[in-house]
Amino acid sequence: MNRFTQFENKTIAETLIEKALEFKANPLKNNTKGQGKRLGLIFLNPSLRTRVSTQLAATNLGVDSFVLNMDKETWALEMQDGVLMNKNKVEHIKDAAAVLGGYFDMLAIRAFPTLTNKEEDTEDFTINQFIKYSGIPVISLESAIRHPLQSLADMVSIRESFQEKRKPKVVLTWAPHIKSIPHAVANSFSEWALGCGHDLTITHPVGYELDEQFTQGATIEYNQKKALEDADFVYVKNWSAFNPYGKILKVDENWLLKESKLANNQQAKIMHCLPVRRNLELSDEILDGNRSLVQTQAKNRIFAAQAVIDAMI
Amino acid sequence: MNRFTQFENKTIAETLIEKALEFKANPLKNNTKGQGKRLGLIFLNPSLRTRVSTQLAATNLGVDSFVLNMDKETWALEMQDGVLMNKNKVEHIKDAAAVLGGYFDMLAIRAFPTLTNKEEDTEDFTINQFIKYSGIPVISLESAIRHPLQSLADMVSIRESFQEKRKPKVVLTWAPHIKSIPHAVANSFSEWALGCGHDLTITHPVGYELDEQFTQGATIEYNQKKALEDADFVYVKNWSAFNPYGKILKVDENWLLKESKLANNQQAKIMHCLPVRRNLELSDEILDGNRSLVQTQAKNRIFAAQAVIDAMI
Amino acid sequence: MNRFTQFENKTIAETLIEKALEFKANPLKNNTKGQGKRLGLIFLNPSLRTRVSTQLAATNLGVDSFVLNMDKETWALEMQDGVLMNKNKVEHIKDAAAVLGGYFDMLAIRAFPTLTNKEEDTEDFTINQFIKYSGIPVISLESAIRHPLQSLADMVSIRESFQEKRKPKVVLTWAPHIKSIPHAVANSFSEWALGCGHDLTITHPVGYELDEQFTQGATIEYNQKKALEDADFVYVKNWSAFNPYGKILKVDENWLLKESKLANNQQAKIMHCLPVRRNLELSDEILDGNRSLVQTQAKNRIFAAQAVIDAMI
Repeated sequence: MNRFTQFENKTIAETLIEKALEFKANPLKNNTKGQGKRLGLIFLNPSLRTRVSTQLAATNLGVDSFVLNMDKETWALEMQDGVLMNKNKVEHIKDAAAVLGGYFDMLAIRAFPTLTNKEEDTEDFTINQFIKYSGIPVISLESAIRHPLQSLADMVSIRESFQEKRKPKVVLTWAPHIKSIPHAVANSFSEWALGCGHDLTITHPVGYELDEQFTQGATIEYNQKKALEDADFVYVKNWSAFNPYGKILKVDENWLLKESKLANNQQAKIMHCLPVRRNLELSDEILDGNRSLVQTQAKNRIFAAQAVIDAMI
Repeated sequence: MNRFTQFENKTIAETLIEKALEFKANPLKNNTKGQGKRLGLIFLNPSLRTRVSTQLAATNLGVDSFVLNMDKETWALEMQDGVLMNKNKVEHIKDAAAVLGGYFDMLAIRAFPTLTNKEEDTEDFTINQFIKYSGIPVISLESAIRHPLQSLADMVSIRESFQEKRKPKVVLTWAPHIKSIPHAVANSFSEWALGCGHDLTITHPVGYELDEQFTQGATIEYNQKKALEDADFVYVKNWSAFNPYGKILKVDENWLLKESKLANNQQAKIMHCLPVRRNLELSDEILDGNRSLVQTQAKNRIFAAQAVIDAMI
Repeated sequence: MNRFTQFENKTIAETLIEKALEFKANPLKNNTKGQGKRLGLIFLNPSLRTRVSTQLAATNLGVDSFVLNMDKETWALEMQDGVLMNKNKVEHIKDAAAVLGGYFDMLAIRAFPTLTNKEEDTEDFTINQFIKYSGIPVISLESAIRHPLQSLADMVSIRESFQEKRKPKVVLTWAPHIKSIPHAVANSFSEWALGCGHDLTITHPVGYELDEQFTQGATIEYNQKKALEDADFVYVKNWSAFNPYGKILKVDENWLLKESKLANNQQAKIMHCLPVRRNLELSDEILDGNRSLVQTQAKNRIFAAQAVIDAMI
């Protein structure tokens, strides 16, 4: 594997899920496999779980990892080709990515969307510039439109928690927020849940339709109550409107997921990628109760990253 | 040991002091003991000595350490329980600490006081939230009210420099400053010096009385000159008023410690935790002369941290 | 070797160039030589290549490296001796450098010039304060007036690319910029090219004369076209005026190096230390073409640093 930026196919996904579960059972089983390999972790945005879990995954495999906060520690990057660089951007992505490609064996990159330039975000411009110019294997640590390590960890968490033969019913429900939030987690979750063959329903207020390239095959249900019926897993997440791009429509506080909405559904497990806005997106009672898988998901981030790095070595 | 946040008792303190001296003599003696262990270093505030000395201590033991500047690299934390998170805080300490608790074997945390919320600071709210929600062993890298790794290094430094049978006379003297400074170093030094059985005098201008929970058993002497008589060790440190909380009273420049004040006391060693404001807190002549133990204290920070981590593995 | 801050003599330079080429052929040949050694990387300014290449070099040798962004993570440093520290500087270089000297086996330091205080910059005040007070071997990661690791990598790059018996003709050409840029790269390149016995021509607009201590022996040619004739290597770099110090004179866009200026010179290789302002300093066509050595130079930064650290262990 020389790139991990999206769901590729069910076979690859299944292999990674199995591998992640193997590493969860025995984190150090391949602890010398990566000796002499170097992973560069490039952050253009803040990170807690992704930063730490990916470093731990690398360490578990004997891979040396090096963190670069390119938003703070280095030079402002020019991303556009052909420009006269006489403004505030100090270095061109062409040059910086090629240098990093010469220094490391693998790059892992976090590059959030602008949420203002729809076209550039939709073509995942920044991470693709890194891929194009670094010339080495690249792992997405969340790009403008996808967060595949999160989704892989989510699929691992569903696999662990669901033993029945039938397909699980998975519901992705929009939640209120006060800021304009990227679509990456929602897009990727939909892409992976559908790709893994789960029965996916997406519920959100009118106007919050996601980019259809990620939701083909899902049931769209505007009535949250109806969507939640019989759910095995409920993934709670805010995202801004895709159209008009990056905007917050009227915030409807009633979309907060709370225990009373699940009164008739004792088996439903609740998921969130974190960070979560408590009592705005998801209630304390749920987050602190037995339904919550959020800590499991966070822990599985280590093993998801480890499966991916292991496959790249 | 599964927590290191304060002085516990003389037996534990003596054991740690002895262990630190062993590591000073032979830093790599347990250099594989910590293999496979991971220490998360969480900074909510700046750090030089603490950051580096703790990383070196971990490395000496074979422990992998990972630095997280949570004030800069991750998400702003909500510390209060039960709130509706619709303001500028992105993640709740409950969730962040639990995630870190799942990722690491031990956490070390720096969390300075607000110096505005006396009640919250006095109950050491922030580090206690981390302890409560992480569920793993925690080392204080300076909390709102204590700096125990500094104090342990200070006790090691006194032990090394004082060979006589009698109790050393230790003086903690307030020094001028231009900013509102936490009480943590002064509190901890008093707590540890008294706990270790030293003869402690604290001298400061009227109004700078420390929280009495840390100074029971010390002699309070408002006359600096008198306090310095016969001192074996003089610990120089500024702190803001405890009442009114966090305020700077009239700065009295005469409290600067300079050589002329020690004209009749040739044996006194001078201590400071650093960073020190030269010629405001302590004169150049003292800092650059033979009385100064400040570099010894700084160096001993490595071995203090190493003794603590070693005891936690 | 216990200091690497400038060109010392041809013998040392040749030894380092050869060693760097050995490491390029076999990066891990001395990978246990540095075990137990600790290198502190001190950044007072941003860094990409220098940060990563030096960490990789240390890792290749088994040296543990620790990055300190002293401009962000620690305390603001007072550099002047004897002052009353009652302003915004929290710690004195005397104390901080001595602590770091006690913690590490070697220090590597980046300290850019002020470009406003000519005297202080010219005596390389900041790095010399670190050297004076740390008491341990120091590597310059670019000081106020020199960037010797860059120049060593540049000499390695010239050596690799030039097989003829005669001296290569090397041209250092000034390039336009919009900001006031340090002289360090230009000074060092001149110092090393001359010291290594290359035939050096420096070309720049009138008024951009470099400090003569670095250029004795070079040909100064104000006509860029004439300077470029028969060049084997063209090093492109902006710098601000040395007199009046740190100023930008009239920006002459015609000094941009582009392919048409090399129409009669097919063999010339183009060099730049990066980051480069594309189409302001150097054209896209050159940077993306076969003449460019910039990625080779960047890659050689690893092996230059490795040769220096290896010599210090």
